[in-house]
Amino acid sequence: MTVHHHIENSKMETIEKQLKNAAKATTAIQSLSDQQKQALLLALALRLRQEKSAIITNNRQDLDKMDDADPKKDRLLLTEERIEALAESLEDIAKLPNPAGVVLLERTLDNGLSVTKKTVPLGVVGVIYESRPNVTIDVAALCIRSGNVCLLRGGTDAFHTNTILTKLIHETLAQFELDENIVQLLPTDRKHVDELLSATQYVDIIIPRGSQQLIDFVRNHAKVPVIETGAGVCHTYVETTAKLQQSAEIVANAKISRPSVCNALDTVLVDRTIATSFLNILAPLLAAHEVEVFADDSSFDVLSTAGYPHLNVATEEDFGREFLALKCSVKVVADINEALKHIHRFSSKHSEAILTEEPALQERFLNEVDAAAVFVNASTRFTDGGVFGLGAEIGISTQKLHARGPFALEKLVTEKWLIKGTGQIR
Amino acid sequence: MTVHHHIENSKMETIEKQLKNAAKATTAIQSLSDQQKQALLLALALRLRQEKSAIITNNRQDLDKMDDADPKKDRLLLTEERIEALAESLEDIAKLPNPAGVVLLERTLDNGLSVTKKTVPLGVVGVIYESRPNVTIDVAALCIRSGNVCLLRGGTDAFHTNTILTKLIHETLAQFELDENIVQLLPTDRKHVDELLSATQYVDIIIPRGSQQLIDFVRNHAKVPVIETGAGVCHTYVETTAKLQQSAEIVANAKISRPSVCNALDTVLVDRTIATSFLNILAPLLAAHEVEVFADDSSFDVLSTAGYPHLNVATEEDFGREFLALKCSVKVVADINEALKHIHRFSSKHSEAILTEEPALQERFLNEVDAAAVFVNASTRFTDGGVFGLGAEIGISTQKLHARGPFALEKLVTEKWLIKGTGQIR
Repeated sequence: MTVHHHIENSKMETIEKQLKNAAKATTAIQSLSDQQKQALLLALALRLRQEKSAIITNNRQDLDKMDDADPKKDRLLLTEERIEALAESLEDIAKLPNPAGVVLLERTLDNGLSVTKKTVPLGVVGVIYESRPNVTIDVAALCIRSGNVCLLRGGTDAFHTNTILTKLIHETLAQFELDENIVQLLPTDRKHVDELLSATQYVDIIIPRGSQQLIDFVRNHAKVPVIETGAGVCHTYVETTAKLQQSAEIVANAKISRPSVCNALDTVLVDRTIATSFLNILAPLLAAHEVEVFADDSSFDVLSTAGYPHLNVATEEDFGREFLALKCSVKVVADINEALKHIHRFSSKHSEAILTEEPALQERFLNEVDAAAVFVNASTRFTDGGVFGLGAEIGISTQKLHARGPFALEKLVTEKWLIKGTGQIR
Repeated sequence: MTVHHHIENSKMETIEKQLKNAAKATTAIQSLSDQQKQALLLALALRLRQEKSAIITNNRQDLDKMDDADPKKDRLLLTEERIEALAESLEDIAKLPNPAGVVLLERTLDNGLSVTKKTVPLGVVGVIYESRPNVTIDVAALCIRSGNVCLLRGGTDAFHTNTILTKLIHETLAQFELDENIVQLLPTDRKHVDELLSATQYVDIIIPRGSQQLIDFVRNHAKVPVIETGAGVCHTYVETTAKLQQSAEIVANAKISRPSVCNALDTVLVDRTIATSFLNILAPLLAAHEVEVFADDSSFDVLSTAGYPHLNVATEEDFGREFLALKCSVKVVADINEALKHIHRFSSKHSEAILTEEPALQERFLNEVDAAAVFVNASTRFTDGGVFGLGAEIGISTQKLHARGPFALEKLVTEKWLIKGTGQIR
């Protein structure tokens, strides 16, 4: 091995240069006016539309390496329609209000000091994600819009797709005479993840987006602050005064409308008094979509009497389980106390619902359940940045610091205190 | 060893029971009205005043074990006056606005869903700190006021003092028929710190308060989210248009008024054009307090010509160093670009200042410096929750998530989305 080779190899074995360049690029992105950032996103939308066939060609290279039965294949697939949706998402993000530069507090102290607290970009945002290529565009756009540099560490499966998407982003940045390091794709080797997670000197925040396994790994290894966008183990409790037909429709919707997402229902808790009548209304709605049910003893009796075709006896593991599929668990509870206790024990603090017509119980549930989103008489499927009016989201945060619930553009900022004086001393 | 002994030992070897009890106690503290929380703090203030001599007796037990030369001895000392100040601090915290229950957003969606985002207590707050006993009272009071349970892990040095303070808190909680686990003192063994840092199931946030070593340890080992209240490496840049006499007074104040705190000045950057005249005004102000100066070559020449009595040649380590003493470093810079570059390299992102009469340079400095607090023509010593009107603070956060700058009562909350419907499905 020559010395030259040796140097080249050691260069490839670290991403420090990329991390340093990211920290430097914060100056470039923050020098843009809000109008320029909007123009940049619109220019990128145009590039995506112009390069649809090139994107599809690259995407096919990734797809060809995958097994047809792999469920990730559909998530990775880009079609003309999906690329159009990406371009439209860029236009939507361009229309959102600028989250940076918002004055949060302004006061003049008795000594004459003028104190202002305002929002400013975070700096360098690292995102670690799996196969969805729309994350590449959404995260880059949200970071540009909020004045942040972003480091994208996508999955190996999406390598060619992410490479062309990043190339188009770089071409657009170049069009605006901007530092390409504002958006960088990191190599997919596992060892570089560790380097990213430890880079407190260069990276301000890391967001893991994907499986619980990925999130756990990041939380347990990161020295850089992390925002978790976690799993949703979501319960819906049907109380005695609930409107039964309406409640069955809410429960069915929460399970069936999109079972693979984090705000989908996992467990139905039903009050003993109404268990038989409610489950008899619910059963045909779930059966129509072949939902596999894991039932506790009481609900098993009711559902087997009703002839429910996809019935199992629930084991302890079926409670507190995120199914991400057309499956759910059912449990009969004595009252709201037992329901709250069950939720407290098994909830992942994402989205929880009570269905009841009793105002005092609605308030009690809203107050006592510790979760990002708590619902009364509605489907947990509504937990979503777009639905709540925040625009595209990076994920649903299930932790309590900084952002809770939909983590969208408005939270890609930090605060800065600005103090102007005329010679004040303390 | 008997079986009985063995059981006792294994009980002592884990704090899981305490952590579980903390999580359970959140219900009790959150069931209080705001008025009850205020009353509780006032009752505690009364207890402190009544038990002054008992507190002082316990405090003496801790002090007697310390070397007289130990600088921690003064920090640990409680006198009648200091206990009175603790009681007054409780009264101040009782007067602050309730940070929980604040409506941050309220909207009705097109489908009729009513969406509200409001602030709610975090849950269980863990604080790891060193010898100051006022932290015990301040943290307990801020947590009670905001509806949080707190776990206090104080230093071994303050064991007897913290024990009696916690006992008085428990007696006051009992007076209100409240769960004593709302405020708990954790054992001081090092191994329990690891257990606390990993307790994601029971603890919502950990705040380390103390030395950089402690903070680094917590950041590197915690799985529970952490708010760092970090070291301050604070610069003041004196630009050519600065009013020289005023600037010298600001610099001297920033160094001398309380050198042991994080917002004290560490490095003076002075523009080449005015270096000689400025340093000649500054020198006697620093000399009057025997400030030891570590000067770069240019400023060394000026200060040694001026006969400055406590002068050293600065080494590379004297920049980016938090002195926490009557010491500072001085560097002559060519212009604002060099000053910004130096600050970017060495700042701990706490408090930074520019002294200049040029509005464009003021704006540039305010925009480009990445720090929690950025000052124009004032002393960095003003970075403080009390000064900024936020009340008592847990520390100054130098990180970017959740809280930046003074971390006070207002930030001891998270958010919760509450959604009320009438049967909406997605």
